[in-house]
Amino acid sequence: MWQRGRRAKARCPDGEFARPRPRLLAPTCRLTASLQSLFTQQISRFNPVYPMSQRIHNFSAGPAVLPVEVLEEARDNLLSLGDSGIGILEHSHRGSAFLAVYNQTVADCRKLANIPDDYHVLFLQGGASSQFFMVPQNLLQQDQTADYLVTGSWSEKAVKQAKRFGHPHVAASSKDRNFCYIPQTAEYSDKPAYVHFTSNNTIFGTQWASEPNNPSGVPLICDASSDIFCRPIDVRKYGLIYAGAQKNLGPSGVTLVIIRDDLVKQGALDIPEMLQYRTHAENESAYNTPPTFGIYLMGLVFQWMLKQGGLSEIQRLNEDKARPLYDFLDQSTLFRPTADDGSRSLMNVTFVTGNETIDKRFIAEAKAAGFDGLKGHRSVGGMRASIYNAFPAAGVEALVSFMRDFEAAQ
Amino acid sequence: MWQRGRRAKARCPDGEFARPRPRLLAPTCRLTASLQSLFTQQISRFNPVYPMSQRIHNFSAGPAVLPVEVLEEARDNLLSLGDSGIGILEHSHRGSAFLAVYNQTVADCRKLANIPDDYHVLFLQGGASSQFFMVPQNLLQQDQTADYLVTGSWSEKAVKQAKRFGHPHVAASSKDRNFCYIPQTAEYSDKPAYVHFTSNNTIFGTQWASEPNNPSGVPLICDASSDIFCRPIDVRKYGLIYAGAQKNLGPSGVTLVIIRDDLVKQGALDIPEMLQYRTHAENESAYNTPPTFGIYLMGLVFQWMLKQGGLSEIQRLNEDKARPLYDFLDQSTLFRPTADDGSRSLMNVTFVTGNETIDKRFIAEAKAAGFDGLKGHRSVGGMRASIYNAFPAAGVEALVSFMRDFEAAQ
Repeated sequence: MWQRGRRAKARCPDGEFARPRPRLLAPTCRLTASLQSLFTQQISRFNPVYPMSQRIHNFSAGPAVLPVEVLEEARDNLLSLGDSGIGILEHSHRGSAFLAVYNQTVADCRKLANIPDDYHVLFLQGGASSQFFMVPQNLLQQDQTADYLVTGSWSEKAVKQAKRFGHPHVAASSKDRNFCYIPQTAEYSDKPAYVHFTSNNTIFGTQWASEPNNPSGVPLICDASSDIFCRPIDVRKYGLIYAGAQKNLGPSGVTLVIIRDDLVKQGALDIPEMLQYRTHAENESAYNTPPTFGIYLMGLVFQWMLKQGGLSEIQRLNEDKARPLYDFLDQSTLFRPTADDGSRSLMNVTFVTGNETIDKRFIAEAKAAGFDGLKGHRSVGGMRASIYNAFPAAGVEALVSFMRDFEAAQ
Repeated sequence: MWQRGRRAKARCPDGEFARPRPRLLAPTCRLTASLQSLFTQQISRFNPVYPMSQRIHNFSAGPAVLPVEVLEEARDNLLSLGDSGIGILEHSHRGSAFLAVYNQTVADCRKLANIPDDYHVLFLQGGASSQFFMVPQNLLQQDQTADYLVTGSWSEKAVKQAKRFGHPHVAASSKDRNFCYIPQTAEYSDKPAYVHFTSNNTIFGTQWASEPNNPSGVPLICDASSDIFCRPIDVRKYGLIYAGAQKNLGPSGVTLVIIRDDLVKQGALDIPEMLQYRTHAENESAYNTPPTFGIYLMGLVFQWMLKQGGLSEIQRLNEDKARPLYDFLDQSTLFRPTADDGSRSLMNVTFVTGNETIDKRFIAEAKAAGFDGLKGHRSVGGMRASIYNAFPAAGVEALVSFMRDFEAAQ
């Protein structure tokens, strides 16, 4: 039973979810029909009238909102994956049912981002925080330098871990203005082992408009945790891309790694097997038991993205979604955006009023009105609206409307 | 729609699931009522008539069968955790709703296993395979020896990783007879840094009846991945217990670590923060984004265990469950158990006919009859029935009946 007090709150618009939707998954790949059916169950056995209007606006920076269709599909397969008689959480990672899920997930990821054949698609654990050390542990030798472009706290953490294994060089930084912009130039070192950057900065609301101009022949490595697949990506420009799933890809606990084969091969051999990319590439992410549910969920999200029209269309949707909020902020007399124009993130919109007391009241009133997760990161304060791929445009419009009313009432 | 061909197959008995069950979770801890309600939602919003009779017998060694009540609870909270309006997968790990889940999960784990206050309960990633190297990386210095009791492939993998950091000494091994027994004696080295053993051996179907007699004052470290909480455990006897969740605790992708505070403190400092137990202990498993859904599921499993009557009662149920299968194997003229009497596992019952052709036919016919996952590990062949805590006794009885018929038909 729903709390009556909540009924008056702003909710996701009913209309968006009330229409019968086609099932998310369509047969698309080379699997046998019978295995395929486990993953692409066309029939909803549960068909509860879910009160979708009760889902509130979730602006969480991660774990974050997921597509409703994905959640419904997962829900319907929790007690039995398709007609297998075994729930998705309970299938052996070496059984044919899960292997069908895995194969489809990899195939859809490759299709979505047009990933060349000489790149591996890996599902690891430990989040981006583990990649901060795995990258240099595998690819940076003690006497080598790697260039880091520092655009926020996460880049700084990556630099810190690289110091354990070699010589990170900060080739560019926007720390001078509290990371409110993306640097336009960099001072690269001579023959760095790689160049590392963070494509989107959740805390500071900035995002690289395109890849940095790294020196020719030097592998570009990207922490894309908070904006992966928010727009088309030319994987060929990269040596390694990694992303914790919990923003644009799925639940926390699984990390997508896209890595070129030559980097896999040149990785260190004198470190534990679990920390070598080679191990996971050679064993198709099943050297040990992988996070099967996370991979399954990520696969559903990939299919949802394909159904949206792929990454070009997702970029268009993201731009259309963020624009009303930035437009409002640019003309507001109360709120102002914190990131420089030209460096602004499509994923995390950060803003302040300039008055902490008003910020707090705004966050509290917004929360009471059903806008959750708007509080800025504790290191910067203010507000942050995280509007990843799965966040509905109508939620941004509702927020702008709420902000306009709040401003008028001051 | 269910495949008609499956209707004739053996299924979990309807009666076990057809009765209305009380909801799994009862308010038990110090959380506020409103937060508590997020985790212990008493009202099932979905009440589909799930065809439970369609769940087949899942003997998978892991990921493995989970309690139906747990799956139902998770299913009902996938689109909204309680009345929060945000699904369990989508809640920020730093928000009050997930913190309530986390606190309840830790509290229930402590209650279930009577864990003393000077032990930390951690939720890590990377499975037991990551603990194989994290244990020596944190606790074994280059010039030190650690004693390993080797009772199967997993113990051997742990030894291999320890070689990277110090001197593992195999103090006991049952390799001479292909790991079909648990060694009764050990030759401990002088002042080892720790003694490591594997409490249950999934591949070979053996299990320690009780802890080894490690030298006084030497920390005992246990890989309990495949039998944790199958019976009462005296945590005081251990320095560190670790377990991948995907057998007795939940989904793959989360590892439970129970570690005494002095071992946390003495851990290495010159390794990446993510690999230090200290980091996760000091940050209550939230140094980076933890696998929130895995923690939630594990919490539901803990509550299910408490509802069963706790670990003593679970042991009784497990003994009663395994007995009919071992009794049948001991008198069978076709099948024989592979583990020595006295070393047999309550969790994984391994057996052969002695004829590979018959083994294969048995596995195929069993699978066709709805008994899934009975194929033994590829390194030993034969059959393996994994019957973890959540595997229903009726499933074992059905298997024995099927085996009896198969034997009679030879």
